[in-house]
Amino acid sequence: MINVGIVGGTGYTGVELLRLLATHPKVALKVITSRSEAGMVVCDLFPNLRGHVDLVFSEPDVDALAACDVVFFATPHCVAMALVPELLARGTRIIDLSADFRLQDVALWEKWYNMPHTCPELIPQAVYGLPEINREQIKSAQLIAVPGCYPTATQLGFLPLIKAGIINTTHLIADVKSGVSGAGRKASVRALFAETSEDLSAYAVAGHRHLPEIQQGLNILSGTEIGLTFVPHLTPMIRGIHATLYAQLSQNIDLQSLYEQHFVDEPFVDVMPVGSHPSTRSVRGANTCRIAVHQPQDSNTVVVLSVIDNLVKGASGQAVQNMNIMFGLAETTAIDMIATLP
Amino acid sequence: MINVGIVGGTGYTGVELLRLLATHPKVALKVITSRSEAGMVVCDLFPNLRGHVDLVFSEPDVDALAACDVVFFATPHCVAMALVPELLARGTRIIDLSADFRLQDVALWEKWYNMPHTCPELIPQAVYGLPEINREQIKSAQLIAVPGCYPTATQLGFLPLIKAGIINTTHLIADVKSGVSGAGRKASVRALFAETSEDLSAYAVAGHRHLPEIQQGLNILSGTEIGLTFVPHLTPMIRGIHATLYAQLSQNIDLQSLYEQHFVDEPFVDVMPVGSHPSTRSVRGANTCRIAVHQPQDSNTVVVLSVIDNLVKGASGQAVQNMNIMFGLAETTAIDMIATLP
Amino acid sequence: MINVGIVGGTGYTGVELLRLLATHPKVALKVITSRSEAGMVVCDLFPNLRGHVDLVFSEPDVDALAACDVVFFATPHCVAMALVPELLARGTRIIDLSADFRLQDVALWEKWYNMPHTCPELIPQAVYGLPEINREQIKSAQLIAVPGCYPTATQLGFLPLIKAGIINTTHLIADVKSGVSGAGRKASVRALFAETSEDLSAYAVAGHRHLPEIQQGLNILSGTEIGLTFVPHLTPMIRGIHATLYAQLSQNIDLQSLYEQHFVDEPFVDVMPVGSHPSTRSVRGANTCRIAVHQPQDSNTVVVLSVIDNLVKGASGQAVQNMNIMFGLAETTAIDMIATLP
Amino acid sequence: MINVGIVGGTGYTGVELLRLLATHPKVALKVITSRSEAGMVVCDLFPNLRGHVDLVFSEPDVDALAACDVVFFATPHCVAMALVPELLARGTRIIDLSADFRLQDVALWEKWYNMPHTCPELIPQAVYGLPEINREQIKSAQLIAVPGCYPTATQLGFLPLIKAGIINTTHLIADVKSGVSGAGRKASVRALFAETSEDLSAYAVAGHRHLPEIQQGLNILSGTEIGLTFVPHLTPMIRGIHATLYAQLSQNIDLQSLYEQHFVDEPFVDVMPVGSHPSTRSVRGANTCRIAVHQPQDSNTVVVLSVIDNLVKGASGQAVQNMNIMFGLAETTAIDMIATLP
Repeated sequence: MINVGIVGGTGYTGVELLRLLATHPKVALKVITSRSEAGMVVCDLFPNLRGHVDLVFSEPDVDALAACDVVFFATPHCVAMALVPELLARGTRIIDLSADFRLQDVALWEKWYNMPHTCPELIPQAVYGLPEINREQIKSAQLIAVPGCYPTATQLGFLPLIKAGIINTTHLIADVKSGVSGAGRKASVRALFAETSEDLSAYAVAGHRHLPEIQQGLNILSGTEIGLTFVPHLTPMIRGIHATLYAQLSQNIDLQSLYEQHFVDEPFVDVMPVGSHPSTRSVRGANTCRIAVHQPQDSNTVVVLSVIDNLVKGASGQAVQNMNIMFGLAETTAIDMIATLP
Repeated sequence: MINVGIVGGTGYTGVELLRLLATHPKVALKVITSRSEAGMVVCDLFPNLRGHVDLVFSEPDVDALAACDVVFFATPHCVAMALVPELLARGTRIIDLSADFRLQDVALWEKWYNMPHTCPELIPQAVYGLPEINREQIKSAQLIAVPGCYPTATQLGFLPLIKAGIINTTHLIADVKSGVSGAGRKASVRALFAETSEDLSAYAVAGHRHLPEIQQGLNILSGTEIGLTFVPHLTPMIRGIHATLYAQLSQNIDLQSLYEQHFVDEPFVDVMPVGSHPSTRSVRGANTCRIAVHQPQDSNTVVVLSVIDNLVKGASGQAVQNMNIMFGLAETTAIDMIATLP
Repeated sequence: MINVGIVGGTGYTGVELLRLLATHPKVALKVITSRSEAGMVVCDLFPNLRGHVDLVFSEPDVDALAACDVVFFATPHCVAMALVPELLARGTRIIDLSADFRLQDVALWEKWYNMPHTCPELIPQAVYGLPEINREQIKSAQLIAVPGCYPTATQLGFLPLIKAGIINTTHLIADVKSGVSGAGRKASVRALFAETSEDLSAYAVAGHRHLPEIQQGLNILSGTEIGLTFVPHLTPMIRGIHATLYAQLSQNIDLQSLYEQHFVDEPFVDVMPVGSHPSTRSVRGANTCRIAVHQPQDSNTVVVLSVIDNLVKGASGQAVQNMNIMFGLAETTAIDMIATLP
Repeated sequence: MINVGIVGGTGYTGVELLRLLATHPKVALKVITSRSEAGMVVCDLFPNLRGHVDLVFSEPDVDALAACDVVFFATPHCVAMALVPELLARGTRIIDLSADFRLQDVALWEKWYNMPHTCPELIPQAVYGLPEINREQIKSAQLIAVPGCYPTATQLGFLPLIKAGIINTTHLIADVKSGVSGAGRKASVRALFAETSEDLSAYAVAGHRHLPEIQQGLNILSGTEIGLTFVPHLTPMIRGIHATLYAQLSQNIDLQSLYEQHFVDEPFVDVMPVGSHPSTRSVRGANTCRIAVHQPQDSNTVVVLSVIDNLVKGASGQAVQNMNIMFGLAETTAIDMIATLP
């Protein structure tokens, strides 16, 4: 059994991790920490877990965490980087769902997150936990930076096009729509039901923290400096990311075959048939990314539709997928759920 | 392996049955019928099942169905009663999610459903599939009438009070709120998003078909003719039933203990702590009924809050629960999912 | 022109007051205060008002407020009672949308609001601003306590039954469903979209602050101490209150006629035809209360369905209705909007 | 008074027309037709209109319609073109909310709508009713083709850029999100609450009927053949269109000034301050189009955000705006409502 700790289990990625890990046949949940809720029975906060999880939130304790084989950080940025150095030093592997280790360029990280990084020396060893790109490195990684939700949907969508070298990478557009749970489980006016239901708006058009993360990923894939316009939108649903991606083709090939062949062995990427429009509900609660590729009116503009559940493939499901790879388990263990529909 | 057939798999109870049965370790899905969609790949209709179900909808065929160990009917009323006699005669067990065999009084059935019943001779052998009341009879049943969604939430909520004989049963009130999926997956104006979102209304106050079903169940429990006012409401959510039940206490006892003891051994009924307010989201996608009991301001009015997912404990999950009992499996097999939250 | 001030205009009742008053032909908006947003242009907070309102939030200033003919308080409880004594002394009339002056029994108020009342001497002169009951007193009132949203829907629904003396008032039940905007525009986890969408639950079953307010009103109407069980529910919509009311009839009369005759002259109460189910959307954005009365299965249980928009007839619209009456205007001025549908 | 008739008043644009016209000080509603609901009191279908509209749906009758000064068609395509020739011949002016007269190229119309046009000779005299472009022609028009919802938001958003000649018009992208009411008030599975809530997907990526309409408009504005990729999305809200528009700048100018100056005299186009993100809720129920223009990271990609209420500025409100212009009234008469928020 893999002894597992979770730091910061009171948010939406925390409760989703618990949902997935509670039924994982190789996992023993050992500790879950929360400064604000220490002492509270987890099920009192998340009644869906009644009868399945009997943990109590505890104060973060390095010894308890270091006794685990792997520790998940389901925290806002800046929390992981305070604890990770010691845990790594004591041999505990880390799967960080926050942004602390996602950017390899420390200066870029410090610019976008507006604070100094406290352990830049660990960044080089962090593996960006997108299995469809970095599966080999994940196997032996000690420190995983789980990708953000927007970056997961966007990079998987652009991946075959960029690898094939058939698009102009200077003017990529990612128009992405997110459900409200992406804003997290914290008191705010902006994310109130009365503010977000029956509403839709773009936000952070001037620059969102996931932009440099996506750029980094696409730069590595393309071997050049790509140009990307990224516009996130807040939409009135709880879960779901829908990325609508646009690029100019520099040559014409069979796009459907390209996508099908690229992802043929991927357990969690489903290329839909020609002419499909994947819906976010088709992946709700599941670890799947569904993709369709279009070339409307035979113009040279390619349109890729890529959907994920932001809390599963965009966070906690992908985190467990990384854990399965790291510990030599079948990659789909405990995360091959079927989406709930309707 | 249990060979399973499904008649009428194109509705919401059908796709939910598929979600549950596709991961059931003892089930082999053999046939799924639909007159309207015969020839269509199931996953083309329900893309959430891609990679998990490879069946094709077929025309109803008695021989194919009779070759199954058990056949589920996920159909509107009147379909099951046309096929059930032959299937039963050929030794196939039946789990009917429709209303055809729920009422033991044929005349009452014919009044509420406004048509003749075509196999009234089979009604006496039908077992009402509410395991918390009829578990023993279910074990050997050949024909199960799965309870309706409102009746499940309402009967489980009233059950301990009536068994204890501590309420006035002449003026029971069930104020029940349902999500829109209860209206089924069929074209209608009333259930359009633009008609039901940002809206709430009661309906069928003069009389809903679940009223005689609930009355029958409570009459049997109490041994008398109970009086019930049942007001269903349509609310803007996909899934969920919230029953708010009112009764006058004829004596004072420890209600919390009554409920906890009554359901102590039930795997799918969760009595919440004193003062709780169960939420429908806490059971969304799960087979659980969560219940809380209140006695506000120490008056003699008892208020019971009972929530289920109408498509799981209120339909397909309960149907699988019945199957597990009928075939001697662990009752929770394949249906001990954790609710998805948020 | 009536010079109008608003204290606390940053909440939902505040912006709704502005929407209504901005188009009122007899109103000059003079001042709107907010401690937290002083200096901010109102339209920067509420872009729907761009082009219609050019006020700036200011620090509360007694002189500026006292210069108004009437001041609305759209504040949490405890704010109005600090300012009202001086404003009244200086001749400004007050329409308080908060709870400070709703209960005539000071001790009862202090028990439910858990703090001392700072100007109990003013309570006797406060008029409870439900025009359908207190229209005459409102005309000359200096201080109006605008009813709460639940109390408005509930009292209007029970009113004809109680006045007619045809129900048993010892066991009244009010099962009431509210949209989320009733929780106000303030940061909270409970009212997040991700917490309330696709969810329904009861809350405060043990006792909600609107309970004593409703009891007070019904006691006055009936001339006795009524017994009421009041269960509020939070439902996934922005606006709307749906009260489902239950009582036992002590005699049989034509209920439809009773209701139609009782409200025949009321501009904002619409008794629906026999067999109707009023929907909250039919009053969304409007100052109307729609009511239907049922007697299911000819039992002696009467069921009343009463719907309002919690922010209009349940708050700001009713406040303007009071103002119209106080200042001798046509009662419907600026508030005879048609509900927006869909 | 302007005598007004409405053909096809049972849909969402119909009820919205009634909401607006019922309070129009210069309008006398004379006739509203519906084949399916002839004989029904309008308020029985749309209870929000109770007390405001007392019409009864009637069978379409040319004499009754011809007696009106203006007739609105709130019908699916193909209905207007059957009646318009005779009504025009008898001197009745026409405001057609359907698509019958939107495309000047008959062959193009027949290709996209897949049927012959029955009065192509009238197409040249149809005026495309977008006041911000065609105000002068509207004044004297006998036949108005009211723009579609997507085309209104998209054309207004691109208008200043194209008029200024500062973008590359060969690769325009319009990523547009719509509420579900755009699908109309007709029975369908796709638009059910249980199908569209908690879901988001693109649709008709291969080609939507609003594509040629937008192309026609932008071609006229630019004087060239523009290239446009148009991807509509269905989002879980009742009302609202959010167009996110992308273009490559061919020169750098002050975009904010460009937009502000272009629309400075427009009563229904609101250019938001620099850095804004207009929300669909800020125009819900109102005839306003709110626009913001961005140039993220100082790249040469311009991003325009343009929002409308699809049933108001995108349909019925714009239709009344046209009528006001045609009849020499103040353009804002009866349509200067403030959006309802929240």
